[in-house]
Amino acid sequence: MLRQITDQVKRIDVNPFPGADILSVSQFDRPRLEWLFARALEMQDMVKRDGGSDLLRHKLMVALFYEPSTRTSSSFIAAMERLGGSTVPITQGVQYSSVSKGESLPDTVRTLEQYSDVIVLRHPEIGSARIAADYCRKPIINAGDGAGEHPTQALLDLFTIQKELGRIDKLRIAMVGDLKYGRTVHSLTRLLLQYDVELAFVSPELVRLPLDLMNEVRKSGISVEETYHVADVISWADVLYVTRVQKERFSDLSQYEEIKNFYEITPEIMAQAQEQMIVMHPLPRVGEIAYSVDNDPRAAYFRQMENGMYIRMAILAAVLGKL
Amino acid sequence: MLRQITDQVKRIDVNPFPGADILSVSQFDRPRLEWLFARALEMQDMVKRDGGSDLLRHKLMVALFYEPSTRTSSSFIAAMERLGGSTVPITQGVQYSSVSKGESLPDTVRTLEQYSDVIVLRHPEIGSARIAADYCRKPIINAGDGAGEHPTQALLDLFTIQKELGRIDKLRIAMVGDLKYGRTVHSLTRLLLQYDVELAFVSPELVRLPLDLMNEVRKSGISVEETYHVADVISWADVLYVTRVQKERFSDLSQYEEIKNFYEITPEIMAQAQEQMIVMHPLPRVGEIAYSVDNDPRAAYFRQMENGMYIRMAILAAVLGKL
Amino acid sequence: MLRQITDQVKRIDVNPFPGADILSVSQFDRPRLEWLFARALEMQDMVKRDGGSDLLRHKLMVALFYEPSTRTSSSFIAAMERLGGSTVPITQGVQYSSVSKGESLPDTVRTLEQYSDVIVLRHPEIGSARIAADYCRKPIINAGDGAGEHPTQALLDLFTIQKELGRIDKLRIAMVGDLKYGRTVHSLTRLLLQYDVELAFVSPELVRLPLDLMNEVRKSGISVEETYHVADVISWADVLYVTRVQKERFSDLSQYEEIKNFYEITPEIMAQAQEQMIVMHPLPRVGEIAYSVDNDPRAAYFRQMENGMYIRMAILAAVLGKL
Repeated sequence: MLRQITDQVKRIDVNPFPGADILSVSQFDRPRLEWLFARALEMQDMVKRDGGSDLLRHKLMVALFYEPSTRTSSSFIAAMERLGGSTVPITQGVQYSSVSKGESLPDTVRTLEQYSDVIVLRHPEIGSARIAADYCRKPIINAGDGAGEHPTQALLDLFTIQKELGRIDKLRIAMVGDLKYGRTVHSLTRLLLQYDVELAFVSPELVRLPLDLMNEVRKSGISVEETYHVADVISWADVLYVTRVQKERFSDLSQYEEIKNFYEITPEIMAQAQEQMIVMHPLPRVGEIAYSVDNDPRAAYFRQMENGMYIRMAILAAVLGKL
Repeated sequence: MLRQITDQVKRIDVNPFPGADILSVSQFDRPRLEWLFARALEMQDMVKRDGGSDLLRHKLMVALFYEPSTRTSSSFIAAMERLGGSTVPITQGVQYSSVSKGESLPDTVRTLEQYSDVIVLRHPEIGSARIAADYCRKPIINAGDGAGEHPTQALLDLFTIQKELGRIDKLRIAMVGDLKYGRTVHSLTRLLLQYDVELAFVSPELVRLPLDLMNEVRKSGISVEETYHVADVISWADVLYVTRVQKERFSDLSQYEEIKNFYEITPEIMAQAQEQMIVMHPLPRVGEIAYSVDNDPRAAYFRQMENGMYIRMAILAAVLGKL
Repeated sequence: MLRQITDQVKRIDVNPFPGADILSVSQFDRPRLEWLFARALEMQDMVKRDGGSDLLRHKLMVALFYEPSTRTSSSFIAAMERLGGSTVPITQGVQYSSVSKGESLPDTVRTLEQYSDVIVLRHPEIGSARIAADYCRKPIINAGDGAGEHPTQALLDLFTIQKELGRIDKLRIAMVGDLKYGRTVHSLTRLLLQYDVELAFVSPELVRLPLDLMNEVRKSGISVEETYHVADVISWADVLYVTRVQKERFSDLSQYEEIKNFYEITPEIMAQAQEQMIVMHPLPRVGEIAYSVDNDPRAAYFRQMENGMYIRMAILAAVLGKL
C-alpha cells in the first residue's frame, strides 16, 4: 500500500525552534525535518567554504555530560565553535564534582543557565532532559537520557539517508543488530514512520524490536519484515543501519558466539548489496563491520559523523533564534 | 550606635587593580568595592544587550583547579569567554597529571604563566594562592584556597545585596547555618564590617561563629546578636544568608537530625519574613531551603549565581588592565 | 674535525608543511628547522605586541590525549587559541569514554577528523601517531607516542638554544641525567647531529645513552664524551640539558641515593659554569635543579616553556597552510 504522505508536507519558511527545547524526535514532523535538513545543508556549504562563521558570536553553550561521550560532546562543541560561539564543557568528571554530590539536576541547570544561552545535557536517567527543561528558562538539548532519547542522533541518521540517496520516500531500510536496547534504532524508526518507506528488522531472537514499537510500525501501514539473517535483506536494502549486539545481553556466551557472525558486515556480504546503497552505523563499532569495508564508497558511517556536526550546528542556531 | 562610615568613602575613578593578584577580601575597601560593583553592573548591561564583547580578545586565562568545582570554574570560564578572551581549563583530573605528581605549585604556575595572561587557582591548601602569587608574574585570582579565602564569592554576595536591596548600609543581615567552617560567611562578614549594618548569627551551638571573628565584629561597633533559631530573626532580617550544616560535623547523628529542622527555610518560615527582603545561599544546597521557596520573588540564590559572572568579568577585565 | 655543514643549508621561503603530519624529528632538516624557527620568532613578536591574531580563525584543533599531560595539552591549546582558532580538548578521562572502550584508534581519529582541521595526539604506545596518520586525512601532530617521539618538544628545545645563544653551530652541549629512557634527549640529540656541535653525555652507568644512538652520534663525526659527573662538564658547557633520573629505574634504592647528588644542579655547581651558558630542563623537575638556581639568568627552563608555545603556533599555522 502506497501511503499518501507527500501531500501533507507543507513547506516551513520560518525557524520553528527559537527558544525551544529539543527533547524528542516526536517534535519533528516532515515540514520541520525538511526545514532542518535545508539548514544543515547550508551549514555544510558554509563549513566547506569558510570553515566557520560568527552567527553565534557572544552565545555560550554549556555541555553538561553526566556520562562521558567523547563523540557526542566533541560534535556539539565543534558545532558551537564553528558558529563562533563559546563553550563551557562540563564533562568527564562531573561525578567528582558538586553537581553530583547530592545536588539536584534542577538546581544544577538553574545555576548553569545563569551563565549560558543553551545547555546540552547527557544524563543516564530516562526523563532527565524533560525535568531539566521544566526548570530551565534557556533551551535544553537532550544529548541522550539513558534508555530514553538522543534526538540529534536520529536526526543526523535521517539527514544522512536524505543526503546520500537524495530522498527518503520509496527507500528500503534494514535495521540490523540489537533492536531491543538500541535507542538510535527506535528513534530513527519513529522518524521513518512519517515517510513512505519499507522496513526490515534483522536481529537475533533475544534482541528483537520491542513489541510496542513493532505495533506502531504495523499500524502505520508501512511494509515491514523481520528476519534473523542479514543475508535475507542484503540485496534488497537501500540502507543497512547496523548496530552492535552487546555480548553482555547474553547469559549464554556460546549462544552469542554462535550468532554474532550472522551480523558481521564483510566485503563478501557487501558483494551481494546493490550498487546504490549505504551502510550506516552510529559508532563506535566493535567488530560489526569489517575494517575492509571502510574503503567501499557505500560505507557511509564516517560521513554520518560529519553530518552530525551540521545537524547540531543547525539545531543550535535554530534554538538560539539565529536562523 | 550609628557609625559614621559614609564620609570615609571616596570615589575611585581609575582601575585600582591592573596587574594585581586577587587573593583576599582584605584588598577591598569601600571605594574599591563601589568601583568594582559599578563595573559589574556595566558588565551586566553589556551581557543583557549584546551577550558579550571583545574587551579581552587575545587574552588567555588558565583555570587551574586542583579540586573540582564545576560552579566556580564554569562561572570564570563563562566570564572570560563573554569578554572575548580564551580559556585553558585544567580541571577535573589535575590529580592524574604531572602538575600533581611531585611537581611544586610554584613550578606549575611558572610554567602556565608562560602561555597565559591570568591564572585562576583553586587549591585545597590554605595559603596556596599567596604562594602561587609570590612566584608568578601574571595575576593570580584565588578561587578558593581550602579553609582560607574565596574572595570572588564574598564579592558576588555583597554585590547581590547591593543590587537586590539598593544599598548595604542600614540593612539587617542574618547569617544562618554552619558559621564555624563556612568560608563564605567569614569573608562576607569581614566585608560587611565596612558598612553600617546590623548582624545576626544563627547556628547550632556546635558550629557557632569562631570567637576571633566574633570579636572582630564586636570591636567594629556593629550591632550583633547570636541565636539558635531562624524564627528569632526571620521577621527582622533584610537579608537571610543561608549555608549548609554538614552532617559530617556531628559525631552524634541524632543531634544533627534534631536540630536541622530549625534551619530549613520553608514557605511557612517565609510567611513571617518582610516583603522586601532576600534569601541568599552560596549553593549547592542539600535541603536547607525547600524547593517550594524557589518561586518566591525573595529567593535570590539563582540571581546570586548570575551576579557571580558579572563580578568575575569585572575582576578579570580589571586585573588585565582593560577597564 | 670541523664538519662542513653550513654550506649545505639552503634557505626555504615557502611553507614546507601544508597538510603535513608532524610525527618525527626526522622530518626536519636544517632548512626546515631554520624556516620553522623564523616563523616561531614571528609568532613571539606578534604575541608580545598583540597577544594573539586571527590567523587560524574558523580552524578547529582536537587535542586527543590518551594520557594526561597538562603541560603539553595546555601549550597546544594556548597556541591554537592565540591564533584565533578553536579547540576541542579530549583529555583527562579518555580512559572512561567510548574512545577507549574497545574502539580502535583509527576509528577514533576518523571520527574526530569529521569535525576538525588538525588533531594533536598523545598516546602511550610507540608508533600510534604513525597509525593515526595513516588513517586520517587531516594533519596529525604527534604530542608523544610512548617511548617513541615527541617532536615539538625537541623542536622547542633546539629553538631555545638558538634563541638564547644566538646560534647552534660551535656550541658545547651536555645532556645530563636519564639518557637511556629520556625521549627528549634522544630526539634533541638527533636534531643536533645536523649541526657542528660538541656533545657530552653525563649519566649514571645504569641509564647511559643507548648504544645505537651513541653509534649514530659517533658516525656523524661529532666530538662526543661520556662521563658520570656534572663536575666534568660544567665549566665547558654552553648548554646543560638536565633531565630527571627516575628512582623507579633502580632496583637498589641505596644505589640511587648515592648517585643522585652527582646530578643535582645547585648554585655551587653554577658558580663553576661559564657566564654565557644556559641550563635547560623539559620539566617537571623533581629535585634535579635547586630552586635557588631559578633566579640565575642562565636558568632557561621557564623561557623554554614559553618557546614551546611559539613553536606550536608555528607548527599549527604551517600544517594548516596559513604561513
